[in-house]
Amino acid sequence: MRKKLSFINNRFKITGGDMTHTATFRVRYSETDRMGYMYYGNYAAWFEVGRVELLRSLGLTYRKMEDDGVILPVRDFTVRYFKPVKYDDEVYLETELTVLSGPKITFDYVLRDAHGNKLCTSTIVLVFCHKSSGRPTRAPQELEKALKSKD
Amino acid sequence: MRKKLSFINNRFKITGGDMTHTATFRVRYSETDRMGYMYYGNYAAWFEVGRVELLRSLGLTYRKMEDDGVILPVRDFTVRYFKPVKYDDEVYLETELTVLSGPKITFDYVLRDAHGNKLCTSTIVLVFCHKSSGRPTRAPQELEKALKSKD
Amino acid sequence: MRKKLSFINNRFKITGGDMTHTATFRVRYSETDRMGYMYYGNYAAWFEVGRVELLRSLGLTYRKMEDDGVILPVRDFTVRYFKPVKYDDEVYLETELTVLSGPKITFDYVLRDAHGNKLCTSTIVLVFCHKSSGRPTRAPQELEKALKSKD
Amino acid sequence: MRKKLSFINNRFKITGGDMTHTATFRVRYSETDRMGYMYYGNYAAWFEVGRVELLRSLGLTYRKMEDDGVILPVRDFTVRYFKPVKYDDEVYLETELTVLSGPKITFDYVLRDAHGNKLCTSTIVLVFCHKSSGRPTRAPQELEKALKSKD
Repeated sequence: MRKKLSFINNRFKITGGDMTHTATFRVRYSETDRMGYMYYGNYAAWFEVGRVELLRSLGLTYRKMEDDGVILPVRDFTVRYFKPVKYDDEVYLETELTVLSGPKITFDYVLRDAHGNKLCTSTIVLVFCHKSSGRPTRAPQELEKALKSKD
Repeated sequence: MRKKLSFINNRFKITGGDMTHTATFRVRYSETDRMGYMYYGNYAAWFEVGRVELLRSLGLTYRKMEDDGVILPVRDFTVRYFKPVKYDDEVYLETELTVLSGPKITFDYVLRDAHGNKLCTSTIVLVFCHKSSGRPTRAPQELEKALKSKD
Repeated sequence: MRKKLSFINNRFKITGGDMTHTATFRVRYSETDRMGYMYYGNYAAWFEVGRVELLRSLGLTYRKMEDDGVILPVRDFTVRYFKPVKYDDEVYLETELTVLSGPKITFDYVLRDAHGNKLCTSTIVLVFCHKSSGRPTRAPQELEKALKSKD
Repeated sequence: MRKKLSFINNRFKITGGDMTHTATFRVRYSETDRMGYMYYGNYAAWFEVGRVELLRSLGLTYRKMEDDGVILPVRDFTVRYFKPVKYDDEVYLETELTVLSGPKITFDYVLRDAHGNKLCTSTIVLVFCHKSSGRPTRAPQELEKALKSKD
């Protein structure tokens, strides 16, 4: 399938699936709970790694962005858990940048096991903000450039 | 407003807001991140405390339930973050049991600051399962009894 | 036993046990691991709450201190675990300020169950540092004053 | 330097440094705190990964060991922090198995940055225990065999 990145009215809608990154994790003991499962709240840390690494692959270092005065707090976080992830399991997190619209950026996630089974899905919307004021701001130019160059 | 608990077709729909519990938290240093905010993934632990304490107020000890062979993994988790929660802030988590339907139980959450401002909202759906098989099962009878007695 | 606070050569050595604070915790599900125990790394967060609350009882707000440009990173951390702490257990953390010497501050901890049994002990040494340079600095004057007034 | 593994009176004392494993970590945002540093309590999770991977390299899967009825809780945990570890830093954890004595096993750790600077050191003593009774037990035979074969 061909990726299609549309840039209409300052809004990127990215479809076709090559603005993606796959990260590998092995469940740490610290991440398990009394059920022996990955604790439901700990997935958030993996999703964060997924988007940071995807941005890095586009040439954007999240640390540098913060040092330059822009932070990226989460606005909406949705997860559906299909199957438990257990201690020491190796899993694969697919992160996709799907929308960039004004100050908002959206990532879609699929977590899979070694057999390709879907373990969980997630959508996370974050908002670029000025570190000083906390107010929303446009995405860094490097990111828009990187996206356009991929078009 | 009068609470209304409807029990139709094995489904409890609870409205009117007195099947609730309020828990107080103070943001720990361990829960902050580089922005100085409560890390977005750490709210999950508060929501868990909220529902465990609400169940306890209904006479159901989550630990005992697990020891009796029933676990309660999370199926769906949705959060919207309105305002950042900062280190050492004292906040108030309102947990409401809103639906009990077959093996599924739903909690709605509102997190507020000392002035009553809404900081975040969440909805979490969990599924009662047999610990041994992992298969869904009806809610423990104590819970259904507790809900009916509140009607 | 009478507390004795000695102030010799800019070094406070505090003995006698009333420069203490007791905090109560209930083990959260998020804090457990696959053994059903409180994960060994999660005690650190409790110890942090213990010392922050002890300082608050002495009139020193850790948040304010940081906003005033002084941070307090941990230098040495030692724990001995005697008995496992389990999910939903209620436990009591005794924190004692034992030494204040130049930029260094030492806290001793005992964690107990409801029967007074010792569950774990810890000693933590932290160093007051300038936020800007990271260099060690004397303890805030408010703290020295508070300690002297207790003498 | 030649490794020397002594097996005297049922006690392995391992010196010479090739019973080691190096793991690489990048500091996640979830692991930072308000100072922008890796939170002092979060190192414990890295140390756990270090020893689990070292054991795996010796042919011992921690998960399997637990499934076979043996758990390995921490008894003593000591850390000295030399330099802060910051968000997005890549660091290298050297884990060394130094003593195996009856039910006790000791790991020594050094954490370094990309330039070889020592960031922190740690020693952790764990105790092999029966999962059912919680009582100490000898190390699994696979481990003793693996150590002897390395001699």
